[in-house]
Amino acid sequence: MASKHVYFFGEGKADGNAGMKNLLGGKGANLAEMTSMGIPVPPGFTLTTGVCTYFYEHTRRYPRELKDQVAKALRRVERIMGKKFGDENDPLLFSVRSGARQSMPGMMETVLNIGLTTRTVKGIAARTGNERFAYDAYRRLMQMYSDVVMEKAAGIEPGEGRGIRIQLEHELARLKKKRGCRDDTELTVDDLKTLVDAYRKRIRKVLGKSFPDDPVRQLWGAIGAVFQSWNGRRAIAYRKIEGIPGDWGTAVNVQTMVFGNMGDKCATGVAFTRNPATGENTFYGEWLVNAQGEDVVAGIRTPNPLNRKGKTALTRHLLSLEEMMPKLYSQLVRIRNRLEKHYRDMQDVEFTIENGRLWMLQTRTGKRNGAAAVRMAAEMAAQKLIDARTAVSRVKPSQLDELLHPMVDLKAQRTACEIARGLPAGPGGASGQIVLTAEAAEESGKKGREVVLVRDETSPEDVAGMHAAQAILTAKGGMTSHAALVARGWGKCCIVGCGALDIDVKKGTVHAGSKTYRAGDWITLNGTLGRVYEGRLPLVPASPEKNRWYKQIMSYADKIRRLKVRTNADSPRDARIARKFGAQGIGLCRTEHMFFGEDRINAMREMILAETLKGRKKALAKLFPLQKKDFSGIFKAMDGLPVTIRLLDPPLHEFVPKEKKEQQAVAAATGKSLAHIREVVARLHELNPMLGHRGCRLGITYPEVYEMQVRAIIDAACVAKRRKVKVMPEIMIPLAGKRKELAILVQMARSVCEEVIKKTGVRVKYLVGTMIEIPRAALTADQIASVAEFFSFGTNDLTQMTLGFSRDDAGSFLPEYLQQGIYPADPFQTVDVEGVGQLMEMGIAKGRKARANLKVGICGEHGGDPDSVIFCHRIGMDYVSCSPFRVPVARLAAAHAVLEESQ
Amino acid sequence: MASKHVYFFGEGKADGNAGMKNLLGGKGANLAEMTSMGIPVPPGFTLTTGVCTYFYEHTRRYPRELKDQVAKALRRVERIMGKKFGDENDPLLFSVRSGARQSMPGMMETVLNIGLTTRTVKGIAARTGNERFAYDAYRRLMQMYSDVVMEKAAGIEPGEGRGIRIQLEHELARLKKKRGCRDDTELTVDDLKTLVDAYRKRIRKVLGKSFPDDPVRQLWGAIGAVFQSWNGRRAIAYRKIEGIPGDWGTAVNVQTMVFGNMGDKCATGVAFTRNPATGENTFYGEWLVNAQGEDVVAGIRTPNPLNRKGKTALTRHLLSLEEMMPKLYSQLVRIRNRLEKHYRDMQDVEFTIENGRLWMLQTRTGKRNGAAAVRMAAEMAAQKLIDARTAVSRVKPSQLDELLHPMVDLKAQRTACEIARGLPAGPGGASGQIVLTAEAAEESGKKGREVVLVRDETSPEDVAGMHAAQAILTAKGGMTSHAALVARGWGKCCIVGCGALDIDVKKGTVHAGSKTYRAGDWITLNGTLGRVYEGRLPLVPASPEKNRWYKQIMSYADKIRRLKVRTNADSPRDARIARKFGAQGIGLCRTEHMFFGEDRINAMREMILAETLKGRKKALAKLFPLQKKDFSGIFKAMDGLPVTIRLLDPPLHEFVPKEKKEQQAVAAATGKSLAHIREVVARLHELNPMLGHRGCRLGITYPEVYEMQVRAIIDAACVAKRRKVKVMPEIMIPLAGKRKELAILVQMARSVCEEVIKKTGVRVKYLVGTMIEIPRAALTADQIASVAEFFSFGTNDLTQMTLGFSRDDAGSFLPEYLQQGIYPADPFQTVDVEGVGQLMEMGIAKGRKARANLKVGICGEHGGDPDSVIFCHRIGMDYVSCSPFRVPVARLAAAHAVLEESQ
Repeated sequence: MASKHVYFFGEGKADGNAGMKNLLGGKGANLAEMTSMGIPVPPGFTLTTGVCTYFYEHTRRYPRELKDQVAKALRRVERIMGKKFGDENDPLLFSVRSGARQSMPGMMETVLNIGLTTRTVKGIAARTGNERFAYDAYRRLMQMYSDVVMEKAAGIEPGEGRGIRIQLEHELARLKKKRGCRDDTELTVDDLKTLVDAYRKRIRKVLGKSFPDDPVRQLWGAIGAVFQSWNGRRAIAYRKIEGIPGDWGTAVNVQTMVFGNMGDKCATGVAFTRNPATGENTFYGEWLVNAQGEDVVAGIRTPNPLNRKGKTALTRHLLSLEEMMPKLYSQLVRIRNRLEKHYRDMQDVEFTIENGRLWMLQTRTGKRNGAAAVRMAAEMAAQKLIDARTAVSRVKPSQLDELLHPMVDLKAQRTACEIARGLPAGPGGASGQIVLTAEAAEESGKKGREVVLVRDETSPEDVAGMHAAQAILTAKGGMTSHAALVARGWGKCCIVGCGALDIDVKKGTVHAGSKTYRAGDWITLNGTLGRVYEGRLPLVPASPEKNRWYKQIMSYADKIRRLKVRTNADSPRDARIARKFGAQGIGLCRTEHMFFGEDRINAMREMILAETLKGRKKALAKLFPLQKKDFSGIFKAMDGLPVTIRLLDPPLHEFVPKEKKEQQAVAAATGKSLAHIREVVARLHELNPMLGHRGCRLGITYPEVYEMQVRAIIDAACVAKRRKVKVMPEIMIPLAGKRKELAILVQMARSVCEEVIKKTGVRVKYLVGTMIEIPRAALTADQIASVAEFFSFGTNDLTQMTLGFSRDDAGSFLPEYLQQGIYPADPFQTVDVEGVGQLMEMGIAKGRKARANLKVGICGEHGGDPDSVIFCHRIGMDYVSCSPFRVPVARLAAAHAVLEESQ
Repeated sequence: MASKHVYFFGEGKADGNAGMKNLLGGKGANLAEMTSMGIPVPPGFTLTTGVCTYFYEHTRRYPRELKDQVAKALRRVERIMGKKFGDENDPLLFSVRSGARQSMPGMMETVLNIGLTTRTVKGIAARTGNERFAYDAYRRLMQMYSDVVMEKAAGIEPGEGRGIRIQLEHELARLKKKRGCRDDTELTVDDLKTLVDAYRKRIRKVLGKSFPDDPVRQLWGAIGAVFQSWNGRRAIAYRKIEGIPGDWGTAVNVQTMVFGNMGDKCATGVAFTRNPATGENTFYGEWLVNAQGEDVVAGIRTPNPLNRKGKTALTRHLLSLEEMMPKLYSQLVRIRNRLEKHYRDMQDVEFTIENGRLWMLQTRTGKRNGAAAVRMAAEMAAQKLIDARTAVSRVKPSQLDELLHPMVDLKAQRTACEIARGLPAGPGGASGQIVLTAEAAEESGKKGREVVLVRDETSPEDVAGMHAAQAILTAKGGMTSHAALVARGWGKCCIVGCGALDIDVKKGTVHAGSKTYRAGDWITLNGTLGRVYEGRLPLVPASPEKNRWYKQIMSYADKIRRLKVRTNADSPRDARIARKFGAQGIGLCRTEHMFFGEDRINAMREMILAETLKGRKKALAKLFPLQKKDFSGIFKAMDGLPVTIRLLDPPLHEFVPKEKKEQQAVAAATGKSLAHIREVVARLHELNPMLGHRGCRLGITYPEVYEMQVRAIIDAACVAKRRKVKVMPEIMIPLAGKRKELAILVQMARSVCEEVIKKTGVRVKYLVGTMIEIPRAALTADQIASVAEFFSFGTNDLTQMTLGFSRDDAGSFLPEYLQQGIYPADPFQTVDVEGVGQLMEMGIAKGRKARANLKVGICGEHGGDPDSVIFCHRIGMDYVSCSPFRVPVARLAAAHAVLEESQ
């Protein structure tokens, strides 16, 4: 049996359906589905993603059967439309569009108006009675086709004039200048005919071939160009960011052209069944009269609002579709209602009105920012459109991040200098230095600088730079413009359509009113309100607890998940924030930061500089009451929840200054000679401090330090318990690698604890455990567990040692490794499941074998990474611990882990 | 049934035998064995090592049954000897000695003359008719007992006078001064009686208790002191060096005293059934007339040679036992012959002649240096006393090391200034700076300085310092003195009894004739000849190939072993040396050292400093012919054997200087600006270079470097093959951690190889493999093996990453870790089997699962460590690779691995 490569849809009948996204791509599958639902869709057919895969596996050739299947589908469309492809009197025209399994907006090619030739253009002109429209469509085809098919897909290097697209644009500009027109619409039919001839000559000259005058050649050229564009530079870059596999391939949709630009009874628009920026349950969209779809998305004309409700201060003077074409608007609303009920999710649709007739060109699940995702999910669940589990699955853990993003401080904002206003395309606040090109944004991003990318409009070429910037600000475009779509997907702060800005890339300036800003100047964006301010305003943390939809979704998630979520917090303040975010304990309280306080650093240094045990003990005695106070505060903040406190971890040299000037200050403060200080610094210097004298190695060589810390912890716990605070201290010994090493320290800790408990007469329950961060510890976890009551995986260090990557130094090769796909993701961000993950699994299995009730968690930064949280759930951890702001993300990811499990 | 704690021996009957060493200790088991053989042994009994273990597990108490069993055995001895313990007329006296499973000479306590009291001393005096002897024995008991039992074992801290031993010595010295005597023997009976009284008072005053006047109390005091001494400081230190477990415990031997110091018909001696320094099959020993055994070992009097053959230039004026007491000597020779035939190994015996009657006090397998071990094993095998496998097992791999030790260059020696001559106690040559205390030797050793420890004599307290020194030189003592015994055990260069030396520790000087040397001055020892030279003479490598016994043993070993032994060599010269030592290929040829040559370093730096690929390629083109030449030389040297060449491994910053002055020179040589060079150095700087941009990460980021190296390897191989050299190149990619990373580089290497092979028309067979030195590589070895044809474990780095120990920095805590027994051995010396070893086993198992014929070796320094070699054999490696001088050690260890396997 020959394979089916072509799927037809049209007039209520379709070969495919919405479930066939992998084969037909999202667009194709949904066109088929809508067709079957009886929604008006211009008929057409879809070439499957299988054809794409075949194409790349067979030196860019097609399956044998394809040609026939296309011809057959084409004839079926001709029958429905009652027109013929290439007919000189009443020709059928096609659009050819990509359509991957997952939407990749703007990343691949599209060719419209396929079928226009020197002969058929006359037929169209006659049939529509609109010669101007016909020739305008023809010159658009020539522009697109010569660029996409003849130059890019053919692999021709752009010549002197930097590519055919730009050269044809110059032709157009030249003609307009000659005729004294400002707008394309002012050109006459004759002008367009002249232009078409000029285009033809220029194409011939620049590309060395003629523009094809055969509709079928045009069609196959366009199909090939779309398949080629799957492996274009932009598409590859986008797939890398989004994590889309390269072997999925794209489908190609060949669909009857309908025109929104044939006159004033024509229109085109883009709409969302709910507001994608806020999640509000209102029909939201933009449209343009007498325009093609690309005009709305490109953001060249500021589009009209779809309905009255969608009007803003900036668009209130523009007529809505609701007002201009009330009947068609009603039809569209009905379709909107059907689609949302059918798909049970917010849809992003494209429509065109051709001479008063409504056609749906696309429906797909709409992108939304985090706030909108949360609200929609919560409200759809309340509407019973979806159940709680589905609602939870609708919010990507990473999307929550943006609800937790900082906002511009309102107080500071009131007195700040407002530069301009635009459309609030991505919520949250952000500050950065102005950069005017995507390349500059990318460069600065690599250097860790915070920048705001300021552009007239953005295009798919800018994606990497947009990703690197803290925020995006455009002078043009609407809420469905490229910049808005992309920023929304990432949850990035973004303002678009900020018309007051006058940007001069060459001069590196941005004018706004009477003021001029330069590249490098700081600005601040309030993406929630769409306002731009001068300078660097303070940002304040978000307050998700005031968002009722967020609370609803999180309460669903908490009911679903089994994995507990703790936080990494070193101060009562952080502990309180984390608790507010739902932390169920502290998984990592680092004690070293406590030593850097002004009142402590000198005692710490005195301890390090002491030459005798007695001297060290004297210094430690000064630190003891301060440490005890630290722990008291944290115990109080976490009343009723466990608190894991890690004993001193970093190497001692981190506490003594390397610079002579500071050393002199230390000499003055401690009464030690500069020479002695320099000698100690030299002695403490290490070639590879990561693998040096730190962690519990300090506990072995200077037991008095750990002894003081344990005493402070338990003493504080006893006092707290006496004051009715429910304390659950967990003493964590870092960097253990061998049972005996840990056994010595556990015994020490226990004997100090028992002594304090006996002395105070308060029996506090406590655990003594260790971090698993050295490969050896994971390998011998059974032995380690024989003396440890809990494990906490320190995946930062474990990754460093297992992969042999110094996190501080990997910058010189890791980008190349990610570029070449050697590691699928940054292993310091997402657990390297195959290597580090293997050790984690082994460590848990061996540990639990030796101690069945071993408590296991993670406190590396991976504890806040959604993919890693899901992995931690899968391997049976009891909890993850992450920074306070990541706690909700981890809670949601933990719920996703359960949902994935049941799939 | 009550346990048997006491084993009797005497008059031809014994409860134990030589096979019961674990229970009775070496001494006790052999006393039983000799007794059963009918050899004259003073009767006695042994308290088992089980009693020792019980003692430490039960807060230093004894098993209930012990008292009765001792009493019973004691009565049996009394019956045989016809004397009673504590009898006022004819008392039986006992010695109480330690005796562990493995000999720990001088590390534990001994108490002699137990049973002498104010009453029995008179009985002895009357019975022997030698009052002087009786009181001398009594004061010796008091000295020993008060020190060992009353002070040390009781845990009394030495007071002002630094301990009872020294205080009693002062009493003796005072008395001698008062009497004007130089020697103890000049003291009269009355003097001794006075001394005994003075001792009694002093003991009472210093220790606060009376010297016990009850024989049974004395006996139990002595037994307890010996058990206590098992956990004395010295014993623990010795066990650590020798790797003896702390829970073995010691037995205690209670044996009838016989006296070598009752007059001129008495004597005592120590002998070896073969010469322990050379291995020669001649009876070899030393003795003293009218002396106790301790006098021979202590080295206070230079002892007489045992026989004519044993006389040296230094001892030829002394009478031998053979000459003085020919009949007893003949009896001793007969015993010697019986013992060696019985034990089939060289024995170290102690004997005492009491009034013309010979008693054997001990036999044990004698320590020997490497050369002697090799010769004895080879000759005993030739004699058919033992088989080849036993012969091989008789030579510890580490002992071979000393045959391979350098010797003093003979030419230099001829014109050198000889300082003094002594006894050649440890062969080989060594140079070092003079140090006069063990502490100074230890200190210097830690700093990596080479020192020679120069002492009058050494004692067990000096062990750590002796270990740290390159060589040991003593002014006193014979071939069985402490220094000689210890040095022999370690195969260390040592000269003893060098009487010409006059050492003043306080002034830090050594006089020899008219010359004076100071601490810090360089001297050189020829331990094989017993000569000491001024200054630092050149040393030459050993030539074991001229030693026929060595060749015999190695040929046995090679027949037994299955593991291949390769070498780590970076030059044709090293390759040739290693081949001479039996290397079966090169397991690691590092290419980076090649870049440091004067003709190359500038091209290398030019490459690093180049800002473009073109610039790097230009510099690499200069390096290519030089690299090719390097490889040609190595291929020629290893004709017929495989050569594994590792591609560039160290980080690039190792090739550019950090100092401004040198940077200026580089600027001049390369034509780059100093600023650029400093910028590059700053950019290349890493916080943790061990985990940084090195190894195959360079291959990924600068593929052109590896490409040049691979081209040079294969080009050289093709040329060599054309010249009839049998080449077997193995290209090794270092530091791989992930399959894809390696796959990219393997593919690159293969395509370069195939290109060169095609171009030259010479089909060279080659392998491409990798090092396993990152934990992740071992964990995912199945994946790695899918693209690698061989694995070579880089256990240096693997240990660093698996344990999280930076080798360069571990010095600040690793000694403490070894001290506390956290790691049983330095993991950089001996594979940490539990952790690193687990990864190695896993790596091999997974690797072979993916590729059945995967070749596996090791090229870390562990490849030359005997224990690690045995482990490598056990986990199924194909070969180990080590430095040229360790190759014979590894060959022998590989044979031992097979022997252990069959046990």
